[in-house]
This record gives sequence, C-alpha cells and structure tokens, in this order.
Amino acid sequence: MNSVLVTGAAGRVGTAVTDHLEGEYSFTALDREPAPDIESVTADITDSDAITPAFDGQDAVVHLAGEPSTEASWDAVLQNNIVGMYNCLEAARNAEVESFVFASSNHVVGMYEDEFAPDLYEPGFGLVVDHTAPPRPDSFYGTSKLFGEAMGRQYVETFEYPKRFYALRIGSVRSPRYDHPFGDAERGVDDGRYTRDSAEYDATVTRMRATWHSRRDLAHQVDRCLRDDSVEFDIFYGVSDNPTRWFDVEHARATIGYRPKDSADDWSGPPERSG
Amino acid sequence: MNSVLVTGAAGRVGTAVTDHLEGEYSFTALDREPAPDIESVTADITDSDAITPAFDGQDAVVHLAGEPSTEASWDAVLQNNIVGMYNCLEAARNAEVESFVFASSNHVVGMYEDEFAPDLYEPGFGLVVDHTAPPRPDSFYGTSKLFGEAMGRQYVETFEYPKRFYALRIGSVRSPRYDHPFGDAERGVDDGRYTRDSAEYDATVTRMRATWHSRRDLAHQVDRCLRDDSVEFDIFYGVSDNPTRWFDVEHARATIGYRPKDSADDWSGPPERSG
Repeated sequence: MNSVLVTGAAGRVGTAVTDHLEGEYSFTALDREPAPDIESVTADITDSDAITPAFDGQDAVVHLAGEPSTEASWDAVLQNNIVGMYNCLEAARNAEVESFVFASSNHVVGMYEDEFAPDLYEPGFGLVVDHTAPPRPDSFYGTSKLFGEAMGRQYVETFEYPKRFYALRIGSVRSPRYDHPFGDAERGVDDGRYTRDSAEYDATVTRMRATWHSRRDLAHQVDRCLRDDSVEFDIFYGVSDNPTRWFDVEHARATIGYRPKDSADDWSGPPERSG
Repeated sequence: MNSVLVTGAAGRVGTAVTDHLEGEYSFTALDREPAPDIESVTADITDSDAITPAFDGQDAVVHLAGEPSTEASWDAVLQNNIVGMYNCLEAARNAEVESFVFASSNHVVGMYEDEFAPDLYEPGFGLVVDHTAPPRPDSFYGTSKLFGEAMGRQYVETFEYPKRFYALRIGSVRSPRYDHPFGDAERGVDDGRYTRDSAEYDATVTRMRATWHSRRDLAHQVDRCLRDDSVEFDIFYGVSDNPTRWFDVEHARATIGYRPKDSADDWSGPPERSG
C-alpha cells in the first residue's frame, strides 16, 4: 500500500480525501492540529525544519495546507502559500517523493467568473474555462495558487523529484454536513446571516450548483492522480458533473480517468434536517 | 512630459531605457545605488516604507529592479522578486499610477529552450513560443517572474490602480560595450573564461543570435508601452528581429506597434575593438 502524506489533513478537503480513500493508502497527516484517526505529525508548513521528517519514506504528497481565503492578507498568503509551498516542494524533493498533488483553486481563473456572473450561471451560457485558459487570479490567494502551480512545474522539470505534479483547481468542497449544492446557503441560514427566502440564499445556491465538488468526487480525483504514472505536470479542474459548471472536466477525464459521480442536478432542494 | 519612475535604473536594462528615451519622459531612478545623470531615490525595493514616496506623482512605473540571475537562491528571489514585486505594485496602487511596465523574462518559458536546444537555434526549426504558451519556468528566478505577471494581472483586474500592466519577457539585453550578438561571447573572452576558438564561444554566439534584444529595441518597446492606452494586461516578448528567435514578436507588433530595428543578421562578427 502506498504511503501518502496529506498536508492540511484536518481540514475540509483533507478529511474528504482520508474519509473516502481509507484503506486504499497508508496516510500520514501533517497539520497544525492532529487529524482524527490518522497518524499525525503536528507542524506548520511555514517551519521547514519541523515538517521535513514527515516527508521521509512517502510515495506521494497531497498538499492541501495553506491559507484558504480569497479575503486573506498578502502577509498570510506570502507565509502560508508561497513560503509554505516552497518548504513542501523542497521537502518532497529531498525525500525523493514521486508524486505531488496540489490543491490549487478555481480562484486562479476567478476573474472569468467575476466578469461574466451572473449570466455565467445560466445553463447554455457557453463559457468553458479549461487548463489552457490564461490565468486571471481574483485575489492574493488566487495569485499564490498560480505561483504554486508554476513552482510545481519548475520542480518536476528541473529537479529529479518530485517526478509528477498534479494541480487541482478545486471548486467548492464542503464539510460532510453541507456536502450538496445547497450547502453554503444552508450554512448562511444556520449562521443567521439570512433566511431561506432571501436573494442571498438563492444567489449562493446558484453559484454552488456550478462550482460544487462533492467530497467523494474530490477524493476520487485525488485517487486518480495517485494511481497515475504518465503525467509529468498537468492542471485539472475539480468540480462535480454539474450542468452549469463552466470548468472543463474533459481534460481530467481523458488524462487521468476522472469520472465524477455527483451532479448538482441530483438535488432539487436541501436535504431534510436531522436535528 | 510624463513622469516615469524606473526601478533598477542603474542596471543594464535601466540604462538602456533612460539613455535611449532621454528627453521623452521625466525620469526618476529608484535603485540601491544612484543612477548617473538622473534624479535618483536610493532605496531597496524590499523596504516598502523607503520606496513608497518615490511613487508619488508618477504617471508610470518601469519596474526593472530585482534579482536577475537564474542561478539565484530561493531566498534571494523571494525577497527581491516576490516581496519586492508586491511592494512596488502596492506603492503604485496607492500612488494611483496609471501604467506599470514589468521586466519579466524569457526564463518564464525557459524549459522550451532547455528541451529543444541546440536544434532550436537552427534556422527553420519552427518552434514559436508566444504569449499563449503554457509557462515552463526554468529556475526560481523564472517562477518568480511568472508570479510577478500574475500579480500584475490581479492588480489591474481587481484594484483601481494600476490601470495597465505590460509584462515584457525580455531576452538578452547587454551593456553598451557588448550590445551585439557576440556580446556574451566576447565578455567570456575578456573575462578569460575561454578563447574565440572555442566551442563555448560558438555556443554563446549561437544562443545570443536568437535571444539578443538590442538596447534601442528594448527602449523602443518600453516606449511603445508607455505611449499605449488600450492594454489592460498583456504579455510581450522582448527580442530584436533575429532570424533564429523562437519568441513571437507579432503580438507586440500588432498590439503596441513594436518595430525592432536590429537583427542578429546585421552582425557577421564582433565589432573591432577600440582599446
């Protein structure tokens, strides 16, 4: 069984990976807090010395740790997503890790959405943003994710390790409680920010119906990367098979065999609440 | 006359700009050392507070300062080309500077050369790398220049200023003494690294016949950017009209009217030495 280090394993995306791929890989978690039920190394990716030992003996790294917000300051992004990215790539290189899967983001191309929303969310609008689209980051966060992709390509092309780098421009992954296209909107209701009878609720659902990446589809996509042995560097969009998505998934389908099982159209309304 | 702040003005590229465009703009130099014959602010771009006043009242910034070597360490690149880029863009934004011309580099796409050299240098090889080519940085330096392009696009698209950003992927600009396709090779002779009858000399000339950007062509390209008022963000290759170049200049010609006057074919051998 392959050994896989998951940085940011305690987070939303990390738990999707380890929950759905349990038993398929020997996971080690690297996070600032311990991940439940997984061998965990507690360290911060901005601390190069602290994280280095965790990379020894790993076959692959799934690098999810970092500043996750488009609202984040430059300083937060600089430390966590730029210095942290270098630290993780350098540790992977020195430990001779074969594969590096990187949580990039749809915000690398976020200004397409900014320019064309809300028309973009209409079925049949026709824009398809794929891996060849010129990047248009919408934030320091988006710029930092593009930096991470570029540095990944630099590493696989100029150093001996890692040998393979997969940049996943992930859409919207939610916690288990909100893992459906109504998730963000329901969370707004739960947080008391608005009611179900509000324009905010509807707008949030409309966006999530396009960008939702279900937890099992995300884990499947990571699994396809971990099983691949042909890619040196590539970029894939991480999104479920939602009819109104504007992100291409054909390239991921053709290259790594990504086959999403979920679609926003499977949901006509939010799930019944249990409590 | 428009006011233009030139960072790195004392350097090889900076002096090409100010020498050839003297009298066309009101230049201010920002460099760690004073630039000859130009109003100079002596400051380091890694020091945000020190550089900020120099941006006040400028119509445009030509940002050339930074770590210039593909051999540079990550730490040098991080401070000078990543933190320094942010500092300059943020200062330009706060000072409401309209245009930002950025010295990017051919090393953003350097791995195309690495993959195809030396066949690439043959006339008729046929590879044309243009502004739409997927980036393939060859070094921390190359990755940092791609970062700078991305952050420039982020700024013009998400903030009010700067309004225009021009990324120039510059080829090989030399000092006045070596401003010809034999320049790098002659410098190697002058430095005692090899003789004119060596494979190193020939290889250096072969590369420079493709990548040479003459000082007046570079200055003309910067001038075309400074006079433009239509571009929001774009990428142009900075190279003279050399027959064996693999960088596209048609996009620069069509978009900003770049018309290089020099060509490596104007030189069959190095110039006579005066001293």
